[in-house]
Amino acid sequence: MGLIESWVASANDPQTDFPLNNLPYGVFDAGQGARMGVAIGDQILDLAQVDHGLDPALVAAPSWNAVMAAGAQVWAKLRARLTQLLSDPTHREAVAPHLSHMADAQLLMPFTVAEFTDFYASKHHATNVGTMFRGAENALPPNWTSLPIGYNGRASSVVVSGTDVRRPWGQLKAPDAEAPIFAPCKRFDIELELGAIVGIPSSGPVTVAEADAMIFGYVLLNDWSARDIQAWEYQPLGPFQAKATATSISPWIVTAAALEGFRTSTPERERDLLPYLTEPKPMLYDIDLSVTMAPKGAAPETIARTNYREMYYSAAQQLAHHTTSGCTMRTGDLLGSGTISGATKDSRGSLLELSWGGKEPFEVAGQTRSFIEDGDTLTLTGAAKGDGFRIGFGSCSGTVIAALEDPYKRGA
Amino acid sequence: MGLIESWVASANDPQTDFPLNNLPYGVFDAGQGARMGVAIGDQILDLAQVDHGLDPALVAAPSWNAVMAAGAQVWAKLRARLTQLLSDPTHREAVAPHLSHMADAQLLMPFTVAEFTDFYASKHHATNVGTMFRGAENALPPNWTSLPIGYNGRASSVVVSGTDVRRPWGQLKAPDAEAPIFAPCKRFDIELELGAIVGIPSSGPVTVAEADAMIFGYVLLNDWSARDIQAWEYQPLGPFQAKATATSISPWIVTAAALEGFRTSTPERERDLLPYLTEPKPMLYDIDLSVTMAPKGAAPETIARTNYREMYYSAAQQLAHHTTSGCTMRTGDLLGSGTISGATKDSRGSLLELSWGGKEPFEVAGQTRSFIEDGDTLTLTGAAKGDGFRIGFGSCSGTVIAALEDPYKRGA
Repeated sequence: MGLIESWVASANDPQTDFPLNNLPYGVFDAGQGARMGVAIGDQILDLAQVDHGLDPALVAAPSWNAVMAAGAQVWAKLRARLTQLLSDPTHREAVAPHLSHMADAQLLMPFTVAEFTDFYASKHHATNVGTMFRGAENALPPNWTSLPIGYNGRASSVVVSGTDVRRPWGQLKAPDAEAPIFAPCKRFDIELELGAIVGIPSSGPVTVAEADAMIFGYVLLNDWSARDIQAWEYQPLGPFQAKATATSISPWIVTAAALEGFRTSTPERERDLLPYLTEPKPMLYDIDLSVTMAPKGAAPETIARTNYREMYYSAAQQLAHHTTSGCTMRTGDLLGSGTISGATKDSRGSLLELSWGGKEPFEVAGQTRSFIEDGDTLTLTGAAKGDGFRIGFGSCSGTVIAALEDPYKRGA
Repeated sequence: MGLIESWVASANDPQTDFPLNNLPYGVFDAGQGARMGVAIGDQILDLAQVDHGLDPALVAAPSWNAVMAAGAQVWAKLRARLTQLLSDPTHREAVAPHLSHMADAQLLMPFTVAEFTDFYASKHHATNVGTMFRGAENALPPNWTSLPIGYNGRASSVVVSGTDVRRPWGQLKAPDAEAPIFAPCKRFDIELELGAIVGIPSSGPVTVAEADAMIFGYVLLNDWSARDIQAWEYQPLGPFQAKATATSISPWIVTAAALEGFRTSTPERERDLLPYLTEPKPMLYDIDLSVTMAPKGAAPETIARTNYREMYYSAAQQLAHHTTSGCTMRTGDLLGSGTISGATKDSRGSLLELSWGGKEPFEVAGQTRSFIEDGDTLTLTGAAKGDGFRIGFGSCSGTVIAALEDPYKRGA
């Protein structure tokens, strides 16, 4: 399938992230308050103002949760209707007045996050980090090839792209120190991930196929991580405050429907998966991903390029595993893929890996970096690349600002 | 301070959990749908029907979240008003028609859980479990005396007392097995905890004193745990599906105000806490706790007795630590204390400890137990004991029912 042409000219540019093939969903404010929007080229369609065919209750609040909960038939009908409205020029007169320039709009959180779970499911990432934290012999935990390791994160810390991220304080302990200190994080980092968003809720265990059908769409996700806090706190119950400062997501939900043509399988496995985790069809996607870094005042430079197909477990497998114990899943649950790293040095999805724990600093815009410095802007981008079009994610960006001087000094 | 007398006769019984000194908050259904209620003796007051003095918006939904978010002045005013209504006999005529027998009512979830965090903060429990999982030399992790170790749990799994708990399936691996199997949990367990409920939200780090003031109240909490699933999955990122089947809470929120007279300090410490974790005043409470177990058809027998003062960290310290990284806390956040075990064998708050990992089975009602069998009912109770009255928590109870035969077989 090639590009689907739209009467919105910018949507036909082969370089746009948002051709008519994509139709990602977001929430925007172009001066009239928060509204549900659909990205098309360099424009945003104000959904509630056009003949969308949805039950009005689904567009009553500026959030996609109600549509997400409405199920696959509603999703398909809306996608078909939007395709019709934006391709057929006879609708132009009615629809065009409800387009806003994306450049003039503020992009807001597209949905309310119910709960946030983060995984650890890229083999190169797990091997790299395991080697640094536990040595090469213990790099991959024995359970790693049998189950998608996950932990619960903090939904209240999820923010939309563009939100500044303040460097956190925390307990830090140097390996040779007698006791920890309470100080600003010195090893602040990113994690390049894809976030899967649960649309259809469940109670009780679901199969991988059912899990795949529950997923409404995907966003880019940066799970900001304080490596020094993590190293001291994470044993034995996992990361906690190291991951609670912020998790940034891109503002446009790229639907599973838009990605359908880009499915690809998880890799060959060392050992057979238990039946409940086997994939009935390809459930990863071929999505190119990259990270740029821009020191304050400098132009962004690409520091990593990888692909979502590097995952060892798909979001559907992760979601199926998540329900094994009977865990109820809800509309708006967000599942981070885990950091996505490839085999090569320039395809690593965290600074921890790129600088090998700070031992191999790298150059960005003429400056040396091991971890993030105040003022640095980190940006994730991603796109599935079709024949003459791309299903793009836009960007997921955040600037790190200085830690509070004294976190307990209250303003006057 | 002694008993505050009420014109509700059953509230003056020295054995009631709910004298006028207590006034815990819940949600009940006595045949007219879900309503906000206040426990008094063996009765429940239908809050919205009396002259409560609150903004009507705070009692519009059958949930305490709006009152919790309204802040300390509203909390104090409501408590004073309820004390007046239920002590002064001149209000009897207006109020009495709005009392229901608790025995005739169904008790529902008293609030909407925003997010659930569980801690690991009783020294005897951590030492016992650490010894079993990692050996006596590595029992207490090096960070344990410096920070309250916590991990994020799953809010969607929190249920109210009385809800049956289905034995989960999960990945299990015997120590000598080559590979894991997918099977029903064989080592299903309880965790005796107290849950602290955040009323006032925060953004950015808060002090221990501020954290203490944010807490609206407390409930009993049983964090059901699948020990065999946990043993295989928990390295390196912590428990996940082992803790996601269910977490039961007692239906009555006992307010911090009702517990004020029972404050007690955390124990002497091996090493000084960092200043951000020091307590400006006593922040634990003297609350007797017990666990009963009843095999199907048998009468309950007490299997453990302990006290909340066994904690090494208070809820206020845990909440303050939770915010260090800038983590936003919201109304309805629930913080589990962690399993509360005392020094003696009969004061251990989990079957894992009581049966020492299954090596020392114990007797209950003429039956032998190491872990929970199908049909067993486990019940937590607790009360702070005053002079002639008790601030009781009611009970937190759940019956374990058999695992699904095939978790992926759908009903016809």
